[in-house]
Amino acid sequence: MLEKKNGKHLPKLTSVQLIVLYYVCAVLFSTLLLSLPIAHKPGVSLSFIDALFTAVSAISVTGLTVVPTRDTFSVVGYFILMFVMQFGGIGIMTLGTFIWLIFGKKIGLKERLLIMTDQNQSTISGLVSLMKQILLLIVIIEAIGALILGTYFLKYYPKWQEAFFHGLFLSISATTNAGFDITGTSLMPYAHDYFVQFITMILIILGAIGFPVLIEVKHYLTHRGKYPYHFSLFTKITTVTFFALVVFVSVSIYLLEWNQVFADKKWHEAFFASLFQSVTTRSAGLSTIVVGDFSEPTLLLMSLMMFIGASPSSVGGGIRTTTFAIMCLSIFFYAKGRNTIKVFKREIDPIDITKAYIVITTAFMLCGTAVTILSYTEALPLMPIIFEVASAFGTCGLSMGITSELSAVGKLVIIALMFIGRIGIFSFLFLIRGPEKEENYHYPKEKIIIG
Amino acid sequence: MLEKKNGKHLPKLTSVQLIVLYYVCAVLFSTLLLSLPIAHKPGVSLSFIDALFTAVSAISVTGLTVVPTRDTFSVVGYFILMFVMQFGGIGIMTLGTFIWLIFGKKIGLKERLLIMTDQNQSTISGLVSLMKQILLLIVIIEAIGALILGTYFLKYYPKWQEAFFHGLFLSISATTNAGFDITGTSLMPYAHDYFVQFITMILIILGAIGFPVLIEVKHYLTHRGKYPYHFSLFTKITTVTFFALVVFVSVSIYLLEWNQVFADKKWHEAFFASLFQSVTTRSAGLSTIVVGDFSEPTLLLMSLMMFIGASPSSVGGGIRTTTFAIMCLSIFFYAKGRNTIKVFKREIDPIDITKAYIVITTAFMLCGTAVTILSYTEALPLMPIIFEVASAFGTCGLSMGITSELSAVGKLVIIALMFIGRIGIFSFLFLIRGPEKEENYHYPKEKIIIG
Ligand SMILES: [K+]
Ligand SMILES: [K+]
Repeated sequence: MLEKKNGKHLPKLTSVQLIVLYYVCAVLFSTLLLSLPIAHKPGVSLSFIDALFTAVSAISVTGLTVVPTRDTFSVVGYFILMFVMQFGGIGIMTLGTFIWLIFGKKIGLKERLLIMTDQNQSTISGLVSLMKQILLLIVIIEAIGALILGTYFLKYYPKWQEAFFHGLFLSISATTNAGFDITGTSLMPYAHDYFVQFITMILIILGAIGFPVLIEVKHYLTHRGKYPYHFSLFTKITTVTFFALVVFVSVSIYLLEWNQVFADKKWHEAFFASLFQSVTTRSAGLSTIVVGDFSEPTLLLMSLMMFIGASPSSVGGGIRTTTFAIMCLSIFFYAKGRNTIKVFKREIDPIDITKAYIVITTAFMLCGTAVTILSYTEALPLMPIIFEVASAFGTCGLSMGITSELSAVGKLVIIALMFIGRIGIFSFLFLIRGPEKEENYHYPKEKIIIG
Repeated sequence: MLEKKNGKHLPKLTSVQLIVLYYVCAVLFSTLLLSLPIAHKPGVSLSFIDALFTAVSAISVTGLTVVPTRDTFSVVGYFILMFVMQFGGIGIMTLGTFIWLIFGKKIGLKERLLIMTDQNQSTISGLVSLMKQILLLIVIIEAIGALILGTYFLKYYPKWQEAFFHGLFLSISATTNAGFDITGTSLMPYAHDYFVQFITMILIILGAIGFPVLIEVKHYLTHRGKYPYHFSLFTKITTVTFFALVVFVSVSIYLLEWNQVFADKKWHEAFFASLFQSVTTRSAGLSTIVVGDFSEPTLLLMSLMMFIGASPSSVGGGIRTTTFAIMCLSIFFYAKGRNTIKVFKREIDPIDITKAYIVITTAFMLCGTAVTILSYTEALPLMPIIFEVASAFGTCGLSMGITSELSAVGKLVIIALMFIGRIGIFSFLFLIRGPEKEENYHYPKEKIIIG
């Protein structure tokens, strides 16, 4: 099916090769760049595995670090990191959107036209044009973010160069949801500065909400037609899920911690800390608080939320919001005795339901295996291991502080999770998926007992 | 649909009421019986919540205990326990088979005829006749088990009454997979006695492999037709999965523990301990070894295996073997580029695939929520909590020894899990499921991005 439709433009094997090639080259090139002595602070040297880990962490915009960024990298190193985050984030946003566009069969002409300017172009030039669009959008967002933050940072940093550099780095780190920091303690220096946190949250959300959503919002704002503009089902589901999770987690963290970590904080401090932590758990991984201080129920909840992750076709990882939403809807409608899922006056395609379940169960088994391996290789309690695995798979980058203590095997497991979390389980399965076969024959169906 | 087909015999509301009623009455009656002073050893008193916990544990044939059975209950108490386990096990085997028979639409006439003698009987008398069949089968298995074990136990216990009582109790506890013990240390007194362990494993497997499988094997053995006997798809899938899991877990435990817990054991001791632990993890919960001594990877693996549990329509709990098998097959066939699951020259019904995924994800969220609640209410590390939750949901009854330390809320959470694990997620969802609606209208389908 695939070969027939898209074969002449971009044969399947080549598209797989392209993606793998893109990653292998990008990882090797970044590792090389980050290994250059000029990228390091004087007297600092970086082992191969630590350079590799940092490269994968930056390309997958996860933000887990085995070495302290601030103490290891020079200003040149910072620029290399920004460059790698930038192209990591844009690459993956492009890839996610692109895979959906070519392999999500039966996508309406409208969606295609929205995202690709010319329907008749070949898919390779489509990919390039898509990447240009995404790059432009992200750079505009980042530039505005850097300008606002840089100007505001003049109050923190005596030199304007320093203020704007911190503004630029934070803006890129937040928008790409990479979560790297050059303060040495993430966003904790701004723990009482609600303006910085507010701008950062906006940038995080713009990166994590998904490229198609941004495009549709742009079209909505510039829409001058006779009829009201209609958002796609995807945009509605992912946006509602995204913000529902943010609200749910904010409230949960507040309730679980108000007499724990927040015991000596004012209500608005606790409220803002909960909100920021909730937003950053979607995928960014920046924090205004030492996450290891949270109590276990909060840490478990955050692990689950990192596992869920951000919107598809965004810079975020995890199983993605739509996958989680489809699972919840499917269970809810089943319990109500319905056989179809009707939402926003549309029906969900049964194939998408199967896909969602495959993604969830594969991801769960993958993370479960990773936790089991790490519990074997690392002499650490279970909670930080679970948290670290969820953080890597969700490319979130929060950590209870065990990343630098990991053994070599442990680091490789986390590297693999960041990679898979990044390209997404569905794309991952797709990469290893054989060519779709015509069903030439059928066997009789037979019911079995389930559950 | 339901109402139309079965309404005249057993309206839906009544069947739900019947099941709930059965459980509430059975739990209350058992709690009452276990609270009788005559059921206790002299000088022992039992709190209400502990009696309730023991009753639910016995009815759900889980085997988790908040009080040591041996030190708490008198011989009368032992008989009450055996009685409760017996009817708990049979009740649930009947219920599982029954729900499948009436609500699993499009079940072949052959399967119906196999299990119910008369196709035209009303469903209530069908339920009674089914229960009789199951009772007879289980009692025969238990009697043979008790006879063999009792005779053999003459070598352990001076008085024949004592030997046969131990034989009877172990036979019932193993066949119903209840896992209660009156030795005070589970099967550890027989840790070097391979004969006792072998017989116990056989009894456990007969209880946990599923009633339809036993019936089909019986038919196979008495089959004298012209054509070879054909096992149903259900029997093939559940049996293969059951034994595949047993082998996989045995080997895994052996490899994970050979230089840990098994370091000072001979190879055949380690082999037998791995095998027995693997079988008992399916659902029985008896053990020849202190499970808390195992290393964390082993405990995580065992938790997953308890979560998976035994065959449907058996005395075991968890998500059930077929559910897990369908998930694996679905992912495997998807990765191979196929849109249907073909196995044993049959095709799996897509509705069964959806059901399997609903069961898995609901069960996972349920257990995740339970772990989070317990991590809040109990001052315990995560590993024993995860293990306890998996054990309760899988109605397995293995524990790292925290059951008696649980808070009242903790005990209630475990009671709820044993109950749901027992009746099965699918039956549970079915119980709360609204009447199936005719789909009078449809909305257009719209694709969304998944994963
Ligand atoms: K991140
Ligand atoms: K049990």
